[in-house]
Amino acid sequence: MTNSQLTLIQIDNYGPWTVTPDPRREMDLQTLQSRLFADLAQFVGSRDGYVFFTRFDNMVAITNGLDRDDHELLQESIGNRYPVSISLGTGVDPSPIEALERATAGLQQAGSAQDGERREVLAGDYLTTDRRTPSDVQIAHFDVNDATGKYTDRLNEFDSFIRIEQGYATLMRHLREEHGALSFFVGGDNIISVCPAMDEDDYHGAISQVEADAGVELKVGVGKAENPHIAGMDAKHALEDCRHYGTAVELSAPKEDVGVATD
Amino acid sequence: MTNSQLTLIQIDNYGPWTVTPDPRREMDLQTLQSRLFADLAQFVGSRDGYVFFTRFDNMVAITNGLDRDDHELLQESIGNRYPVSISLGTGVDPSPIEALERATAGLQQAGSAQDGERREVLAGDYLTTDRRTPSDVQIAHFDVNDATGKYTDRLNEFDSFIRIEQGYATLMRHLREEHGALSFFVGGDNIISVCPAMDEDDYHGAISQVEADAGVELKVGVGKAENPHIAGMDAKHALEDCRHYGTAVELSAPKEDVGVATD
Amino acid sequence: MTNSQLTLIQIDNYGPWTVTPDPRREMDLQTLQSRLFADLAQFVGSRDGYVFFTRFDNMVAITNGLDRDDHELLQESIGNRYPVSISLGTGVDPSPIEALERATAGLQQAGSAQDGERREVLAGDYLTTDRRTPSDVQIAHFDVNDATGKYTDRLNEFDSFIRIEQGYATLMRHLREEHGALSFFVGGDNIISVCPAMDEDDYHGAISQVEADAGVELKVGVGKAENPHIAGMDAKHALEDCRHYGTAVELSAPKEDVGVATD
Amino acid sequence: MTNSQLTLIQIDNYGPWTVTPDPRREMDLQTLQSRLFADLAQFVGSRDGYVFFTRFDNMVAITNGLDRDDHELLQESIGNRYPVSISLGTGVDPSPIEALERATAGLQQAGSAQDGERREVLAGDYLTTDRRTPSDVQIAHFDVNDATGKYTDRLNEFDSFIRIEQGYATLMRHLREEHGALSFFVGGDNIISVCPAMDEDDYHGAISQVEADAGVELKVGVGKAENPHIAGMDAKHALEDCRHYGTAVELSAPKEDVGVATD
Repeated sequence: MTNSQLTLIQIDNYGPWTVTPDPRREMDLQTLQSRLFADLAQFVGSRDGYVFFTRFDNMVAITNGLDRDDHELLQESIGNRYPVSISLGTGVDPSPIEALERATAGLQQAGSAQDGERREVLAGDYLTTDRRTPSDVQIAHFDVNDATGKYTDRLNEFDSFIRIEQGYATLMRHLREEHGALSFFVGGDNIISVCPAMDEDDYHGAISQVEADAGVELKVGVGKAENPHIAGMDAKHALEDCRHYGTAVELSAPKEDVGVATD
Repeated sequence: MTNSQLTLIQIDNYGPWTVTPDPRREMDLQTLQSRLFADLAQFVGSRDGYVFFTRFDNMVAITNGLDRDDHELLQESIGNRYPVSISLGTGVDPSPIEALERATAGLQQAGSAQDGERREVLAGDYLTTDRRTPSDVQIAHFDVNDATGKYTDRLNEFDSFIRIEQGYATLMRHLREEHGALSFFVGGDNIISVCPAMDEDDYHGAISQVEADAGVELKVGVGKAENPHIAGMDAKHALEDCRHYGTAVELSAPKEDVGVATD
Repeated sequence: MTNSQLTLIQIDNYGPWTVTPDPRREMDLQTLQSRLFADLAQFVGSRDGYVFFTRFDNMVAITNGLDRDDHELLQESIGNRYPVSISLGTGVDPSPIEALERATAGLQQAGSAQDGERREVLAGDYLTTDRRTPSDVQIAHFDVNDATGKYTDRLNEFDSFIRIEQGYATLMRHLREEHGALSFFVGGDNIISVCPAMDEDDYHGAISQVEADAGVELKVGVGKAENPHIAGMDAKHALEDCRHYGTAVELSAPKEDVGVATD
Repeated sequence: MTNSQLTLIQIDNYGPWTVTPDPRREMDLQTLQSRLFADLAQFVGSRDGYVFFTRFDNMVAITNGLDRDDHELLQESIGNRYPVSISLGTGVDPSPIEALERATAGLQQAGSAQDGERREVLAGDYLTTDRRTPSDVQIAHFDVNDATGKYTDRLNEFDSFIRIEQGYATLMRHLREEHGALSFFVGGDNIISVCPAMDEDDYHGAISQVEADAGVELKVGVGKAENPHIAGMDAKHALEDCRHYGTAVELSAPKEDVGVATD
């Protein structure tokens, strides 16, 4: 069984800010958003979590291993260095979508994302150390078979991008609807999914669906561990195994780390 | 008539680098990618161009106003500060997709994106000052009607994101197939399109298509100018007009700038 | 008694890299250096340490609370994202200068700072949790009395800067020679010193010396705690007390934190 | 004859901001300051100017080639992305210190650096294109003879730093008092000076003074050009000549660029 701690990171009242008093230069907004995401990636990532840019004004992180103090420090540090502040809602559940549902609810109950008075909310539950296990996090790392040869080196970049994007749109919907998994495009031809306890058949089913609906051939490596970094690194190695053996799905055995009892 | 200068920015041999000698920490890759994009956004944006993150290892920019020297300096500066280098292909055409086709071809002819020997290619044509006109660039800025009220404040973040994403997937395909326009998700509920000379009916058609296929209601402001920044800022103001008047499509009159003859 | 853990952060073979194959654009080097420092400040700072830019190619950090794993992760993450790598030497001693002596020796023994073969050295000792106490770190935060009124608003910026700089040059030498303390200019009119167990008279002596030799009037707040962040924050509050009461030296009582036994 | 355009970049009301409502985490301030400097270095540097971090809350740039529009855009872009804003004062004079005097006066006349109401001042004169010549900017690049062998590889890092720092403190004072030149430590063992029309004897004099007063042996390469980047690059090459020939002072011949009439 998995047990995901999901964090919703929401920029407070961002939409109105971008047009106050007048619309701001788009490239400044793009710079602000992507640098904010990079800072979150460093903070969360160096504590073995994963964060995804999602919509940039709302970002989703899997934060098993980060406690309330960590979240509070992150919020303070961003507030010290950016012209915008962030609210953080956290939720824990065996199902990633349920965990995110709770994380989101914590912020929604505090007010609207565009409520100028609602700032730096810190809401939700954290997975305490004593409840953590070596199989809490299941990460699936997908990529497209021979994307460089079939797309990048052959089509113009936008048509390559459309192929990848349509594959992603199909996969994200399928995994969310069938399994409550959360899938994020992470650049290139890569998609990373935060999954519940899915098995090999589930992954074959997802890959078949994307090929049937979007005509895009995927393969996937899967890792399971106490935190996103270890699970994700196992998933990457499993994906290398797919390349090596020509297989579509490879599952890594769950890995243990020093910090968590394995009972 | 529009005349778009499109630049394809491709990280050289990036895929292999990310797994050499072993897969690198995902959050470090995310940090690297998003900061590289931010630097491009500052360089291109402060010269009144627009750049989009697209797939992050391949990024698309509209660069009317930036010449070969600017591109060369950008390439040198990134090479000085990052562990990866970039190749730049540029193309000019009334149709954005054709311009990008040329931009891409310049790099493809020089070798594969994953050819370890192909580094820092600088290929293509630039729109010279004497050929520039005040209507070269048409930018359309779309957003989703009441996204905060309908999605962000009501659904969990992933389900909000799916709605936006499916709307984007539909729009990008429609505008590319029907008009050769290039559409990019830029965060929140915003999509920016680099368009050929499209008229009001074309935009109404696109909005209807997205509502029919994805159930997402969009509105759009459109600007036309000599460069992306001015066109984009006009588009933002036109979008504010949509909000004010409750309209779905607003086209701004083309703006002139000091630097370009208006003949 | 204090017990400082000092880390020397040295960019590997940096000098030769800056001129290979040709001298690189100075502003790219400045960007690289200052962003590398910023990343170190975030990594070390969010773990309650302090890092100082010193010479930028060699930076000094006080890292009580960061263990070998933290240092290793920092080194790996920088190596993933920059065109240069870093070596890290660490030392522990009641005297800051002795701790840094050991930290430096660890790197020097591994080879020259400009040895192209010597990369990513990780050397030295770390202060284990069981040896940590609430008075390990003494931080002194100096600033110049009415620097804005006397200098910034009256002189041209370079002449203001010379005053501050000469005050700093005097203070750094005095505290190092008399006490083995390490003083760093941190911007504005602020100097932060990592000190051994100094008392109020010692600080009055330092301030008198700087006034006599450089004609610059300083005041100082001092904090003592288990880590640099808490000690430094106490020092800042003590400095606010100096402003409030018009005093030259204020020492904060040592603060306890949850993580460390206070015996 | 030289003709320097100097810009003073001052963070508005920064001191009070750093302690409002309470003192902020020092490492967040360090991050903010160094990233702001990095952004200035990219903006100014990619337009062939130089910027120095100086005191971080007050930075000095040599901006020959950047006009009022450039300064205005820089100010707007920083205001869009940081929690603080900047004021910019500019001055032009054959003597660097006089140019900076004017640049500073423009801000001082608008109010105190710690006046909460004084924000985003843009004051001063710019060197128009028709007045620019190929010898407007003289840049001297100093470094310490065998700093790695004599200091870095032998002493602890703080004692190395003291040597460099005392050499810098002596040089900055000498060049300012005797010549009105502005000298900035730029990391490692490097000092860059913005100079008036000084000759070889002047540089020998400066080097002798530093050796006599601080016991630090310097060498220097000097470049003269229409803008800081070209002059600075020539200075770097001249410094490489010093290394090659074992000389203490090398002056590069003034270089011409396409954009400026050489009359």
